Amino acid sequence: MTRAKQFLSDNAASVHPRLWDAMKAADGPDSPYDGDRVSQQMDEAFTDLFGRECTALWVATGTAANCLALASMVQPHGGVVCHREAHIEMDEGGAPGFYLHGAKLLLAEGESAKITPDTITDVIGPIRDDVHQVQPHAISITQASEYGCSYRADEIAAIAELAKKRGLGLHMDGARFGNACAFLGGSASDAAGAVDALSFGFVKNGGLSAEAIVFFDAGLADVARYRRKRAGHLQSKGRYLAAQILAMLEGDLWLDNARSANAAAQEIAKAAADRLIHPVEANEIFLRCTAEERGALRAEGFEFYDWGSDAARLVTAWNTPQEDALALAQSIARL
Amino acid sequence: MTRAKQFLSDNAASVHPRLWDAMKAADGPDSPYDGDRVSQQMDEAFTDLFGRECTALWVATGTAANCLALASMVQPHGGVVCHREAHIEMDEGGAPGFYLHGAKLLLAEGESAKITPDTITDVIGPIRDDVHQVQPHAISITQASEYGCSYRADEIAAIAELAKKRGLGLHMDGARFGNACAFLGGSASDAAGAVDALSFGFVKNGGLSAEAIVFFDAGLADVARYRRKRAGHLQSKGRYLAAQILAMLEGDLWLDNARSANAAAQEIAKAAADRLIHPVEANEIFLRCTAEERGALRAEGFEFYDWGSDAARLVTAWNTPQEDALALAQSIARL
Amino acid sequence: MTRAKQFLSDNAASVHPRLWDAMKAADGPDSPYDGDRVSQQMDEAFTDLFGRECTALWVATGTAANCLALASMVQPHGGVVCHREAHIEMDEGGAPGFYLHGAKLLLAEGESAKITPDTITDVIGPIRDDVHQVQPHAISITQASEYGCSYRADEIAAIAELAKKRGLGLHMDGARFGNACAFLGGSASDAAGAVDALSFGFVKNGGLSAEAIVFFDAGLADVARYRRKRAGHLQSKGRYLAAQILAMLEGDLWLDNARSANAAAQEIAKAAADRLIHPVEANEIFLRCTAEERGALRAEGFEFYDWGSDAARLVTAWNTPQEDALALAQSIARL
Amino acid sequence: MTRAKQFLSDNAASVHPRLWDAMKAADGPDSPYDGDRVSQQMDEAFTDLFGRECTALWVATGTAANCLALASMVQPHGGVVCHREAHIEMDEGGAPGFYLHGAKLLLAEGESAKITPDTITDVIGPIRDDVHQVQPHAISITQASEYGCSYRADEIAAIAELAKKRGLGLHMDGARFGNACAFLGGSASDAAGAVDALSFGFVKNGGLSAEAIVFFDAGLADVARYRRKRAGHLQSKGRYLAAQILAMLEGDLWLDNARSANAAAQEIAKAAADRLIHPVEANEIFLRCTAEERGALRAEGFEFYDWGSDAARLVTAWNTPQEDALALAQSIARL
Repeated sequence: MTRAKQFLSDNAASVHPRLWDAMKAADGPDSPYDGDRVSQQMDEAFTDLFGRECTALWVATGTAANCLALASMVQPHGGVVCHREAHIEMDEGGAPGFYLHGAKLLLAEGESAKITPDTITDVIGPIRDDVHQVQPHAISITQASEYGCSYRADEIAAIAELAKKRGLGLHMDGARFGNACAFLGGSASDAAGAVDALSFGFVKNGGLSAEAIVFFDAGLADVARYRRKRAGHLQSKGRYLAAQILAMLEGDLWLDNARSANAAAQEIAKAAADRLIHPVEANEIFLRCTAEERGALRAEGFEFYDWGSDAARLVTAWNTPQEDALALAQSIARL
Repeated sequence: MTRAKQFLSDNAASVHPRLWDAMKAADGPDSPYDGDRVSQQMDEAFTDLFGRECTALWVATGTAANCLALASMVQPHGGVVCHREAHIEMDEGGAPGFYLHGAKLLLAEGESAKITPDTITDVIGPIRDDVHQVQPHAISITQASEYGCSYRADEIAAIAELAKKRGLGLHMDGARFGNACAFLGGSASDAAGAVDALSFGFVKNGGLSAEAIVFFDAGLADVARYRRKRAGHLQSKGRYLAAQILAMLEGDLWLDNARSANAAAQEIAKAAADRLIHPVEANEIFLRCTAEERGALRAEGFEFYDWGSDAARLVTAWNTPQEDALALAQSIARL
Repeated sequence: MTRAKQFLSDNAASVHPRLWDAMKAADGPDSPYDGDRVSQQMDEAFTDLFGRECTALWVATGTAANCLALASMVQPHGGVVCHREAHIEMDEGGAPGFYLHGAKLLLAEGESAKITPDTITDVIGPIRDDVHQVQPHAISITQASEYGCSYRADEIAAIAELAKKRGLGLHMDGARFGNACAFLGGSASDAAGAVDALSFGFVKNGGLSAEAIVFFDAGLADVARYRRKRAGHLQSKGRYLAAQILAMLEGDLWLDNARSANAAAQEIAKAAADRLIHPVEANEIFLRCTAEERGALRAEGFEFYDWGSDAARLVTAWNTPQEDALALAQSIARL
Repeated sequence: MTRAKQFLSDNAASVHPRLWDAMKAADGPDSPYDGDRVSQQMDEAFTDLFGRECTALWVATGTAANCLALASMVQPHGGVVCHREAHIEMDEGGAPGFYLHGAKLLLAEGESAKITPDTITDVIGPIRDDVHQVQPHAISITQASEYGCSYRADEIAAIAELAKKRGLGLHMDGARFGNACAFLGGSASDAAGAVDALSFGFVKNGGLSAEAIVFFDAGLADVARYRRKRAGHLQSKGRYLAAQILAMLEGDLWLDNARSANAAAQEIAKAAADRLIHPVEANEIFLRCTAEERGALRAEGFEFYDWGSDAARLVTAWNTPQEDALALAQSIARL
């Protein structure tokens, strides 16, 4: 029987051994919540990484990270501009409605799930400044996007400029921030740009249960801190989350993991160049593929999701075996 | 220098080694969220334990467990009867207001933070059935209570009967359910009684980041499942939470851990019998103690919280060294 | 100078004299809230009108009526299918997000702002029954639609059947229910069909400040009653709202008023037949019209809203002077 | 048979004739919502009355006024200090929980339902500035209090000073502001003091359906404006609400009405001096009274509410007939 070769998602991949070690190292007695020695190092670690003052909170999930970040920027009667296929719109079970107390997602268009100043303006331009219409309070972009594409520094800068001009907060959903950053050249600062808050994802990149909400505005973090507790996301043994995050930052493990996943994705992308629906700029590949072709790949032990009726989504992870990526590339080439 | 002897709280104690092992054992690839093989075993494990049909959901914190359980029973315009000093009222940063969309806590009296049919009736009796007053939808009790006291089976039965008669849901906050159960003789079924949902705590009992919401009514679980995702508490690598919980249930580790903590508490209680403010029926000791006396204990390396100006709270954990408990008992006796 | 001829909206028209009389007649002392003699007659009056058991609550605005009706059917984690241009989506300042505690509007397509079983299915069909996606809990349709078109009895029946099959509540926003009903032949029962709750609008039809939420399911009304108070919509002198509503029902004043408005609209529609964007099936006319043409009409004293860059919206009211309608018809014909 | 003599409440009394006239005078065509000529005069009218810059919004109920005012000052994770028997706590069906998105009422003590800097400090003093406890964001006081007692200018000033020092908003529930003001000497400015927002009640003082939220901070009004629409409280024919309010302010009708009600209350208070539970400083009388005595009064046609088992609450209104007040005074004297 063929061994299953996993390309379903990076969200269930194993935990990196260095994270286990770091958690075990934190296993002595310490203060609860985020008063412990490990959690206390997070602000500095992110400040070093981004080269500007950071306040960082750990939470267990990307959904919580996104929603707490947005809740610090958006009043209940406001709205958040995001892509029509953004994760917060499509896949979070209505969590933004819960965390933002009914604030509304205002859906913008854009190639490969990336929005632009133009498509944002298409949405907010027609909104009259009157009480009958939900007013925009923030913009949220996803780095890398839901179709595995990365915003370039100048693209983020243009959006940030618009946000500033309109008095809107700017949030980045970085569930795959590592992959985007690795693709873009490795500068965390460039990959984040001038956003006000970043959901910095680690779980899809070899983590167990820790994401960081990195605030570049301490005032927002002050609000989020209360909201985190209120949402039941202040774990009493927070040091084990902080330990995961610090281990990831240590020696740029997060970048190394992302590079591995990206390299596997590029291997496949090369073989599937004429089938690609979106450029491969992170660790996701969307390719045109008939039902029959998908059946053939599955018969060889490859696991992945259908994407509508004529396409497939393949996701690589930090620990995707090189041989699996190669095998998949060859199988696709043979189709 | 004296080694610190920790009686601050059980909520930051180390993780039991068998849980680390169980998590590592779950570290292969598996399905995300709660579709994995470990999570799928939870219902059966709790059904075995309680001897009635259970549906169990993992979450990372007790606050989330309590609030999701209550959100399945209480409409936004309703109320929850609980003790005036209940954790949901005092220490959850307003989380019930968030999760229940503004529903209200209706505060009852009671010795040692335990409520009774009488004190519940004192609260709900005067509520007219009209729209100007918030109507009770559920009752929440804490086992063991916030003062470390355990509800006896007949006490729970009396409350459950009242709840049933009034059409109210019944929830149990079991952050220290293990300790109560160990104190009461070890029957989980007796310690839970006829509640509709139980927040079964593991984190204070040697866990890392997993609590179970045990529903004895599958309909409530169906609601809670959506609300869990919506609250950002559906972790993608849920198998590591399930693994903790199953390891706890395996061979009654949860009971053994609780018994250790309780034994340490009893050691201290014996020495402090004439100072006890509440009977010691779990792993918490509240004792009368002047500022000077507290200073003396701290000088010997004991760490604990003040409780108002004339008392101290001491909490033991699954791994409180026997020698520390003995030392503390002796020091208290010497005061 | 030309007298202004008002076609901006029916929502600011004068109050019908019989309503003033009815309010004055209710001006003696009586019970507060809805315990008064007038409010107490509402259920029976609507039961007579619809020929099935009704429970009716007054509120001051259509937004409150819509949102309270929906709040009785939709849990916070659910969704409401409605047209992409429905009033609840476009013009209520996010009120559904507030009243439904973050539940989501799921937007369907359809000609002239009417949805159909097919377009509803296009929305709910792809929703997987899993916690990552907001599940539909109800459907809301607008009678007459936001483009002044009326659902025929068989169209409503088909939607109701789908709702029933899928276990969804069915709500009708009847801000212009009178106009739809008058157009359809005058049977309230046919115009409402098998909906579970109807926001029966009177304000746009000559009322001052009273709309009725008519529940055809008493259980929903029981919830809405609490939510109405909780939303600050339980007025203490409710008899003046009930008096407006009963005066409207008395001798079918509501239908007469609607017929007058519709007749004026038809007058204009006839003259503008080749410019109509939507069939005129109530009291709103949307017609193609250049900026220059709109300028010409305005120069003659006609007031109305632009509808995008190439169209105008004209709305007639219960008291639109026949001469104004004729004048407008002639002016349009002359363009 | 004896004519009923009404002392149940002022909340269902008839509408003052000058308000009917004012509404009729506003009955021509005008702009919808609050764009009409009448609504546009409100800011100036209140600015004149209070002698400082005001922004005023009309709403239909005191509950909406209180909750919208508070929602402009309090974040969802915050709290509002109010008296344990405040209307917002006791009688609004949980509306603050709804409008404030789960923020919490923090209950303070105080004679006659009035709170003081000391009792406020008793509540907020022990709140640690940490995320586990709900932090105070505002204070709400009721003028006149729920027991018919009026805050003196210096009492308000002391509370305002505390609020300022602690960075808290200050709101006044003035459901019976007119009665307090009349009792205190007639200066609106003195009776309101340095609050940030005042729910200025008219309905209990001869109005039909209009209360004003008077903001002394335009920034708060900007938020409340959106929240009002979002709560379904922006009526399309707002001019009829504005007309009521302006008619009340015109020639100090509000003060005259309140003085009439207060005079009737004083008449009764004199006769009942030895039975008074609270000083009579507005239009409510709480008097000790056995069940038998209450029966005797009712037998004479007086209608009023029991207040617990040993007391009665009597409320006078702007139109309480002098003869009824005298008759009641005599009957009480005779008891």
